[in-house]
Amino acid sequence: MVEKQRGYLVIIGGAEDKDDDCDILQRFFTLAGGRKARIVILSTASSDPHAGEQYRRIFTGFGAEDVRVLAVQNREEANQSQYNNSFSESTGIFFTGGDQLRITGILGGSTLGSALQKSYRQGAVIAGTSAGASVMSETMLIGGLDDATPSKETIRMAPGLGLLKDVVVDQHFAQRGRIGRLLAVVAHNPYILGVGIDEDTAILIDQSGEFEVSGSGTVTILDGRQVTHSNVSESSPDQPLALTDVKVHILPKNYRFNLYKRIVSMPAK
Amino acid sequence: MVEKQRGYLVIIGGAEDKDDDCDILQRFFTLAGGRKARIVILSTASSDPHAGEQYRRIFTGFGAEDVRVLAVQNREEANQSQYNNSFSESTGIFFTGGDQLRITGILGGSTLGSALQKSYRQGAVIAGTSAGASVMSETMLIGGLDDATPSKETIRMAPGLGLLKDVVVDQHFAQRGRIGRLLAVVAHNPYILGVGIDEDTAILIDQSGEFEVSGSGTVTILDGRQVTHSNVSESSPDQPLALTDVKVHILPKNYRFNLYKRIVSMPAK
Repeated sequence: MVEKQRGYLVIIGGAEDKDDDCDILQRFFTLAGGRKARIVILSTASSDPHAGEQYRRIFTGFGAEDVRVLAVQNREEANQSQYNNSFSESTGIFFTGGDQLRITGILGGSTLGSALQKSYRQGAVIAGTSAGASVMSETMLIGGLDDATPSKETIRMAPGLGLLKDVVVDQHFAQRGRIGRLLAVVAHNPYILGVGIDEDTAILIDQSGEFEVSGSGTVTILDGRQVTHSNVSESSPDQPLALTDVKVHILPKNYRFNLYKRIVSMPAK
Repeated sequence: MVEKQRGYLVIIGGAEDKDDDCDILQRFFTLAGGRKARIVILSTASSDPHAGEQYRRIFTGFGAEDVRVLAVQNREEANQSQYNNSFSESTGIFFTGGDQLRITGILGGSTLGSALQKSYRQGAVIAGTSAGASVMSETMLIGGLDDATPSKETIRMAPGLGLLKDVVVDQHFAQRGRIGRLLAVVAHNPYILGVGIDEDTAILIDQSGEFEVSGSGTVTILDGRQVTHSNVSESSPDQPLALTDVKVHILPKNYRFNLYKRIVSMPAK
């Protein structure tokens, strides 16, 4: 499932705490090396060139050795040869929120995009929040209806960064009522694991493909491998989907889940 | 599960079509006897004494033999002896929307409430929409947060009319993002089947405990009997719930589900 995975992935459902304990951002900071962390913030998802500044202040405040913001705004910038080794010494890369299509549309296949993949293979921790979370998988959700009956027209998908295989991530999950659209994704291909992450909640995936839940909400796992029936191929786009025998897990902080084995582990007592 | 069930139950997720084909209301009308139907509309859920009028016009328009509205507004009225035989000739009883606590608070244990139970045992079709849907079960949801991470504080429950056993119904389901609160119900007692009904969608339960889905949305079934782990007893009220191995079915129009056997049947080809 995560055969190419080398570094940790920290996937955040958006709206993570930035004022109090900053639990999730602290976890990323620690995984990236703590005071020795060299962090690059990629704010390409946002058209606001200052979108990365808040994170820069936070990671600098934690005591990271080096924190930079790359506010790359178009493909011309992303293809500049200076980016060949942008991340060569990075231990952590952080994607801000915004629009996931900006991330892939601007970085996909670019010099900066290649440097990112290389950095990941070399063991850097990659984190993303909101749009930066969705973009982690091979196929990503780019749009869909909130609080809606599952149907094919409730979702739009596109190729993501491919750091996470056989999974589709959705974010702001409980807060925006997104289980309908994630169920629709699983209906399209029940092999895919749907992972819905609430706000101020994250999964921290290690090299073995096991993740731990962190933060104040829950992670919803939709496992469709035992689906016995679906009408996805014969239904019209606006027709409600049928889907039977989806397995669901709701996992709060400290629970773990193995993406290979699809098994939950309880927190240590 | 539905040992005492005698008549059909028609449980509607709210906002059913009242202008076009009126599919769901037509199904109720037909089950209640069609042109021979003698229908009583109970608008107790609403404090608006005219809340039943729209339904009266619709069922009269369908050609029902007799249609009456009982806009009982308090316990004094509900206990009047004239209600002893209010439903003696009724073939269908329809609960409007409003507040489910008004239904149980005003009718529970009253003369009118007893007459209702008797009528149901004698084979009348009982229908309810929105609040009138929630009230059907032994335990009902009376409040909870929409679009929320499942936790104990997201829900409030109370005793319902008890026409439907071992089930908790939620309504306006996809439209209001209510899976979190229905999962919280299942966590409280995984023996209970959670049934979430979308707007303009209904389940028609026959005497054998099997229902058919009708309308334009879907019905979400949460079957917790195979739940392997839950933290419901040890978690604090505002702490996110953990719940593993919940089985989910999404069922659109013409799909059937047996409440005893917990088995889905596909529509006939």
